[in-house]
Amino acid sequence: MSALLTDLYELTMAAGFVAAGKHRDTATFELFARRLPPNRNYLVAAGLAQAIEYLSTLRFTDEEIGYLRGLPQFALAPQEFFSLLAALRFTGDVFAVPEGTPVFPGEPLLTVRAPLVEAQIVETYLLATISFQTMIASKAARLTAAAQGCGVIEFGTRRAHSPAAGTLAARAAYIGGCLGSSNTEAGFRFGIPVYGTAAHSWVQSFPREEDAFRALQALLGASTVHLIDTYNTHEGARCAARVGAPLWGVRIDSGDLLALSREVRAILDAAGLPTAKIMVSGDLTEGRVRELAAANAPIDALGVGTDLATSGDAPNLGAVYKLVEIKSSGERRHTFKRSAEKATLPGAKQVFRYADRDVIGCSWECIGCDESPSVQALLRPVMLQGAIVNSLPSAEEARVRAASAIAALPETVRSLDPAPEASYPVTISPALRELEEGTRV
Amino acid sequence: MSALLTDLYELTMAAGFVAAGKHRDTATFELFARRLPPNRNYLVAAGLAQAIEYLSTLRFTDEEIGYLRGLPQFALAPQEFFSLLAALRFTGDVFAVPEGTPVFPGEPLLTVRAPLVEAQIVETYLLATISFQTMIASKAARLTAAAQGCGVIEFGTRRAHSPAAGTLAARAAYIGGCLGSSNTEAGFRFGIPVYGTAAHSWVQSFPREEDAFRALQALLGASTVHLIDTYNTHEGARCAARVGAPLWGVRIDSGDLLALSREVRAILDAAGLPTAKIMVSGDLTEGRVRELAAANAPIDALGVGTDLATSGDAPNLGAVYKLVEIKSSGERRHTFKRSAEKATLPGAKQVFRYADRDVIGCSWECIGCDESPSVQALLRPVMLQGAIVNSLPSAEEARVRAASAIAALPETVRSLDPAPEASYPVTISPALRELEEGTRV
Repeated sequence: MSALLTDLYELTMAAGFVAAGKHRDTATFELFARRLPPNRNYLVAAGLAQAIEYLSTLRFTDEEIGYLRGLPQFALAPQEFFSLLAALRFTGDVFAVPEGTPVFPGEPLLTVRAPLVEAQIVETYLLATISFQTMIASKAARLTAAAQGCGVIEFGTRRAHSPAAGTLAARAAYIGGCLGSSNTEAGFRFGIPVYGTAAHSWVQSFPREEDAFRALQALLGASTVHLIDTYNTHEGARCAARVGAPLWGVRIDSGDLLALSREVRAILDAAGLPTAKIMVSGDLTEGRVRELAAANAPIDALGVGTDLATSGDAPNLGAVYKLVEIKSSGERRHTFKRSAEKATLPGAKQVFRYADRDVIGCSWECIGCDESPSVQALLRPVMLQGAIVNSLPSAEEARVRAASAIAALPETVRSLDPAPEASYPVTISPALRELEEGTRV
Repeated sequence: MSALLTDLYELTMAAGFVAAGKHRDTATFELFARRLPPNRNYLVAAGLAQAIEYLSTLRFTDEEIGYLRGLPQFALAPQEFFSLLAALRFTGDVFAVPEGTPVFPGEPLLTVRAPLVEAQIVETYLLATISFQTMIASKAARLTAAAQGCGVIEFGTRRAHSPAAGTLAARAAYIGGCLGSSNTEAGFRFGIPVYGTAAHSWVQSFPREEDAFRALQALLGASTVHLIDTYNTHEGARCAARVGAPLWGVRIDSGDLLALSREVRAILDAAGLPTAKIMVSGDLTEGRVRELAAANAPIDALGVGTDLATSGDAPNLGAVYKLVEIKSSGERRHTFKRSAEKATLPGAKQVFRYADRDVIGCSWECIGCDESPSVQALLRPVMLQGAIVNSLPSAEEARVRAASAIAALPETVRSLDPAPEASYPVTISPALRELEEGTRV
């Protein structure tokens, strides 16, 4: 990844911080979602591993610095700025909520405390990588719930916002509860289970459907999934039945999936293949998955593409990265914004999780430490002075964490329907409230 | 990019084609949108440059092949498959619509004619890269029209579906008509104009707003844009007025942008700064841009993020990549699908563009060659036998093409309102219709 993958203003500000002699100030920024997207009762934190990979490898090349030198916006930038970029490494501290943790609006997912220039430049990349994966993991948790125990496989790379987004969507979907993905790179890079057997072009490339099915079976044996809707789903099912075992089952990718799954089930059963399974796919949405599950459709696996890989009903997460503290020549100042509907709270924070509610406090507080051993401080050190201090969990570990943490949420919050207000209270600690009032005076 | 960035079934099919002795068959696939997304009267083709870059550099590493060998799905794959992957290069032909060309559903944006294994494996990547950029360029064209001559700058990397998607969104937005982007990597890689001066953290990092404005002015001179809404927009405007020239102007990022832009305009004018400009930003959508333009708001530039970089109102494009011909042992077969609502037409095609309508014909046809010199065949050779034969236009050239081609569309099609049916007829040539009927028998 290129260090230039950031908004230009991060770099003009960096030049300005150098010019103003402020670049060694220590800044604390927090990354959080301002509000829940539509149709969401909670979010599932994801994307931290890629954020840390970025921070660990951040470097400007000579060619990139040369490009900046040529831009009109840097005509008056001090020479020191370019030398600083050439030597720039991320040397700050990072505190973060572990991937797979349910989070709520206003709760920092990530805190960066670093020299001002470093903390500023990384804003854009951190936001894009964490909010995208968090959005997809949150969507996957809903789809998993909608499927009521039927496995969901992520099929959406082709519809993702660029190929690279597809690979990250596969990772986040797995964390959120999917069984795995069709994205092979996600399997290779992140150890995610990968699935897939054949497309319509496989069937079309043979003169007869039956030839295609026999050739697939010769290759895949008991994991064969015949795609039966290329010409006519009923005939396809009968053809699969004729070819017979070994096979995992069949896939239906178009048409009335409820009616077809029942009819195909009957065809397979009548042919003595009661253990042959049925997978469905084809522009499935969360709503459609819910309907199929509610109707008890005889479906064993669901392939979900577009709706999952683009979070179709809520395709963005309004996460922000805000300066909350700055320390200059030994003096600490808490910062905030008052902008209409975009106000922020000052000071570095911590999130304290009880069984059924959260308290956002100041980072130095230790809320609930005495009263209950089950209160957790969600933000934990990940990097200190630029070095990774706690190895990050794998996608698999994050998925396990998500499953148990989601199961522990109140039922109204876990529900696919909108949670009544205050189903999961998130309050501000008295100390943070006092800091806010003191800062605003 | 990794060659594994594809759906697993492309690779299992590839193994199956080798096992079935079909991997040297020549396949022709076409990439097209099945239908227009909501709120779109046309699409703007984009993403070809990245598609060709991918095809030109496609390689499997030993490590990647080792990963595949370890997957259960390849337990029965012939040894020859792995050797084939190790030596695999894209050796096929590619025909494509130039970036920046308006296109309609059913019209191929890209045709790949290659050995079956190669043509199959590249499906996922080609779809993701071309449909994403096409979706964003199409959205940018609408935003540009909505702004009625006021420049639109793409600001959405932080809200894009991953950082990499942000860089490609910037490129596509520029092709679709934006002035440029805040994404610095897009400037570096694609020569796109980049914009940006300072964020709220700049203002917050100084004890007083005025200090922040003076420091920015010292760095940026006449291109300074003061962000005036950190604490209070009216006070921010008065502060900017006090600091005075040189400056480009001010930016308002929150609140009632219509009322505020008028009030800020009055403050600047009263302070003797009538040439200081006003930029607005902050979760702007196409609808809001349209309202601001209709109200004649005194706005000189618009920064649009989320709605543009995620194509907020239509966040996916249902593009597909379908096998239309296969040549095996010298025998050519035209292929098609009959699946419900997903049927496809057989045979390689060409798109013939008249002034106000298109005809989709067979690739060998020459429709309109005689009758009118202005009929264009949209699909042109880009790669032959794996080598690039026509250098691709730059993003700038694609943007120029898009602007003039969009201007030439009928007004009802260019309009932001839904075009009446048949505003831009796309018909099938008699030869293609005959081929379809012959194939279906």
